[in-house]
Amino acid sequence: MQSLQEKASEWSGVHPKDAFAIDETNLYEKLGLQTFINLSTNFYNRVYDDEEEWFRSIFANSKKEDAIQNQYEFFVQRMGGPPLYSQRRGHPALIARHRPFPVTHQAAERWLHHMQEALDSTTDIDADSKTKMMNFFRHTAFFLVAGDELKSHKQGVACKHAAGKPAAA
Amino acid sequence: MQSLQEKASEWSGVHPKDAFAIDETNLYEKLGLQTFINLSTNFYNRVYDDEEEWFRSIFANSKKEDAIQNQYEFFVQRMGGPPLYSQRRGHPALIARHRPFPVTHQAAERWLHHMQEALDSTTDIDADSKTKMMNFFRHTAFFLVAGDELKSHKQGVACKHAAGKPAAA
Repeated sequence: MQSLQEKASEWSGVHPKDAFAIDETNLYEKLGLQTFINLSTNFYNRVYDDEEEWFRSIFANSKKEDAIQNQYEFFVQRMGGPPLYSQRRGHPALIARHRPFPVTHQAAERWLHHMQEALDSTTDIDADSKTKMMNFFRHTAFFLVAGDELKSHKQGVACKHAAGKPAAA
Repeated sequence: MQSLQEKASEWSGVHPKDAFAIDETNLYEKLGLQTFINLSTNFYNRVYDDEEEWFRSIFANSKKEDAIQNQYEFFVQRMGGPPLYSQRRGHPALIARHRPFPVTHQAAERWLHHMQEALDSTTDIDADSKTKMMNFFRHTAFFLVAGDELKSHKQGVACKHAAGKPAAA
């Protein structure tokens, strides 16, 4: 069976070595907190204004300010900064926290489309950092698609099993 | 609704501030790779020899060498070292990867019992690092119990729904 990592690489076209090249330099020290806040604000402004209703609706139950804070705190923590995310919310547990959402291939591509535009229009992010971050984002997005498919599969099996039993009441 | 972090703190008795005090110093630089390998080897030797069959059986489908490597690579990565785990397996995704296992309160306590003994009998871990690591492990163990309960709840709901529909074939 293909691992999450293998699926993520195949579907994203990004090798793990390139996805985790974000760890070769400390991007937090290089870019600073404010750049990450700006990036996530820029990104979610696009998402909450998306003309594609199917994508915009995925975020309908979350407040934009919360989405922004969750994202930049995770990025800061993962890219060499203080563990802001874990201090407030615990382990990132990326797949579990994306469980309520339909993380399809199509949703991953739409997310990446907005992130690419957000990166391109956020000042103070140099080309090398941009490439590293985009590789990380692309690989991670498809890692989550792989995690989402795992969920459907498991649930399908459990439900088939449950449906085969006589009702208890 | 209580968050994963709130449940983890309540059930473990460890405040997030203490759980993530592992980030105040670089434990990887302080202890070195070999200490982490020794700790995980020591830990899994105990687990695979556990006299409690119900606990030992949780690990029956995993090879001990793999369990050891997965664990020390995650610890190294999370405690300030190189991202060995992600390069090989992707994001830790702790809750999703524990999904196949029954992570109950009782299993968390048994895991922690073995880890306390492994820490106490691994040389070259100073008292301060030991306390920080144990707080992190205790909080994380109950974070995973919280993640496990989330899974049962969601699956229950999904299956009830599925069982209520007429069979397709």
